[in-house]
Amino acid sequence: MKTSNSVVVRDTTLRDGLQNIARTVPTANKLQWLQALYDAGLREIEVGSFVPPQRLPQLADTAQIVAAAKQLPGLQVSVLVPNLKGALAAIDSGADLMVLPLSASHAHSLANLRKTPDQAVEDIARIREAIDAAGSSCQLEVGMSTAFGCTLQGAVESDEVLRLVEAVLHVGADHVSLADTVGYANPLQVKQLFERTFAIAGERLSCAHFHDTRGLGLANVMAALETGIRRFDVCVAGIGGCPHAPGASGNVNAEDLVFLMHSMGLATGVALDGLLQLRTHITQELAGENFQGAIWRAGLPKTMLPTDATAPLAALAD
Amino acid sequence: MKTSNSVVVRDTTLRDGLQNIARTVPTANKLQWLQALYDAGLREIEVGSFVPPQRLPQLADTAQIVAAAKQLPGLQVSVLVPNLKGALAAIDSGADLMVLPLSASHAHSLANLRKTPDQAVEDIARIREAIDAAGSSCQLEVGMSTAFGCTLQGAVESDEVLRLVEAVLHVGADHVSLADTVGYANPLQVKQLFERTFAIAGERLSCAHFHDTRGLGLANVMAALETGIRRFDVCVAGIGGCPHAPGASGNVNAEDLVFLMHSMGLATGVALDGLLQLRTHITQELAGENFQGAIWRAGLPKTMLPTDATAPLAALAD
Repeated sequence: MKTSNSVVVRDTTLRDGLQNIARTVPTANKLQWLQALYDAGLREIEVGSFVPPQRLPQLADTAQIVAAAKQLPGLQVSVLVPNLKGALAAIDSGADLMVLPLSASHAHSLANLRKTPDQAVEDIARIREAIDAAGSSCQLEVGMSTAFGCTLQGAVESDEVLRLVEAVLHVGADHVSLADTVGYANPLQVKQLFERTFAIAGERLSCAHFHDTRGLGLANVMAALETGIRRFDVCVAGIGGCPHAPGASGNVNAEDLVFLMHSMGLATGVALDGLLQLRTHITQELAGENFQGAIWRAGLPKTMLPTDATAPLAALAD
Repeated sequence: MKTSNSVVVRDTTLRDGLQNIARTVPTANKLQWLQALYDAGLREIEVGSFVPPQRLPQLADTAQIVAAAKQLPGLQVSVLVPNLKGALAAIDSGADLMVLPLSASHAHSLANLRKTPDQAVEDIARIREAIDAAGSSCQLEVGMSTAFGCTLQGAVESDEVLRLVEAVLHVGADHVSLADTVGYANPLQVKQLFERTFAIAGERLSCAHFHDTRGLGLANVMAALETGIRRFDVCVAGIGGCPHAPGASGNVNAEDLVFLMHSMGLATGVALDGLLQLRTHITQELAGENFQGAIWRAGLPKTMLPTDATAPLAALAD
């Protein structure tokens, strides 16, 4: 179990946030968002997806965004890739990390990637070979999506998730993450699955990706934090969602998660005021979309701890 | 630490929910809400406050509501009382439980009750005497409000909260509860203060009262649950709030809390569909007010556990 007093907030506004919104944000505006995220202190940003542009035209400018992001010192630039073709584009782009989603739900895997989970594992082996053959330093993370249930299939067995985690590590994934793609997870389930995954993957279990569809987003974040996870995917204003999760609300809200961490004395390196300014900008630019979040409205408590404060975090793991 | 697989959901829609809403809901409508709550399976309901009607005209019919509520078999009927006069009214009404708020924040205590916390403790001693002198079976709960911080004073020291808990137990409170009146609490603070309070109060620490002002409501519920608390105050549609907490959103949402508990296999005895019907009714009747909640929009996951399922709850306390 990690007991570090700092947490990495990985922003995915430009990818998960925009993939489920019909309108296309102009590249110049995305670059403004990117700069604002960076200026607010974020140092890991998922900037797009290398998917066919006819499938997600909103993200067709991903190579341009990666190129610009690579100019920002100290930024880890990540992209989502659905397959080998996308992985080759990611290698070419110079991204630091590619995230390949693997649906633990067979039904979701077929709907989203048009292959079974085990066929996706074979793809990952080929992607590993391609990265190594290219002499690329791009890291490979497999995001275990629908790890907590699926709107198409219903229950997803933890044993199946763990089997697939083992398989993707075996074929060369550098990292794995667990994703509640459709907002089905509860804190007890999160605690149990993260603990079991840590037992298999150790430090290679790197990130938790939650949606707040049913209001349990931050409760699930806390459950994962208690197992030792120190990296969380977020979207500004809580935008985002999966095309295969009807009625889904978005990713865990970036501002609220940063507030949660700071309130407990965990450092994120993120300036909440900068993030809140970006939120205002995004909600104006995307007027009419669904937004989530609370801290923007209520403001900080008088008692707010400074972001660099440290707290006896070990108490969380009692 | 309790490891019971059931949780008591105590509804306070008719009290905390309505006290911060300017309009007055007619008595007949309140009785419909009460019946709907009862029909949905709630067996502990706070139905009003015995405060001066000129201060809270919305709650001036509390005695009538108590009388009606007392007709519902097996229902524990509670009321809020600010002082001895209110306590005498509660005894006369036949309520089963009176909840007396004691602000651990001196500034909030003076603003809300016009007395210091220690003067409030003296009141509680007099109320205890009055209950006993009347031969009443009405239980006395002291709600330690602003236990996690205060919009007026800022920080509230845990040592001061604990000193006051000891004092009110010493003068005869049957139960104490901890309330985050203004939405300042974070999960680490909740875990620590509930643990320390359990060490003093044992089973007499009976309830957790959270507001979702800054989005941490359910994360705080989980933190308290892990310390052994098995009773939570809620409001339907997440209405409610403290007149001294500007910008505050309401109490923890009843529907989302019930969903959270059921998702982990904890029984509440509450039928979520009945609660959701009442939510629809209330949001129509109170159109224009602020409402919170997520599960009403997203609907239950396919994987939803039945309400009577049991889970290895001990895992939560690992």
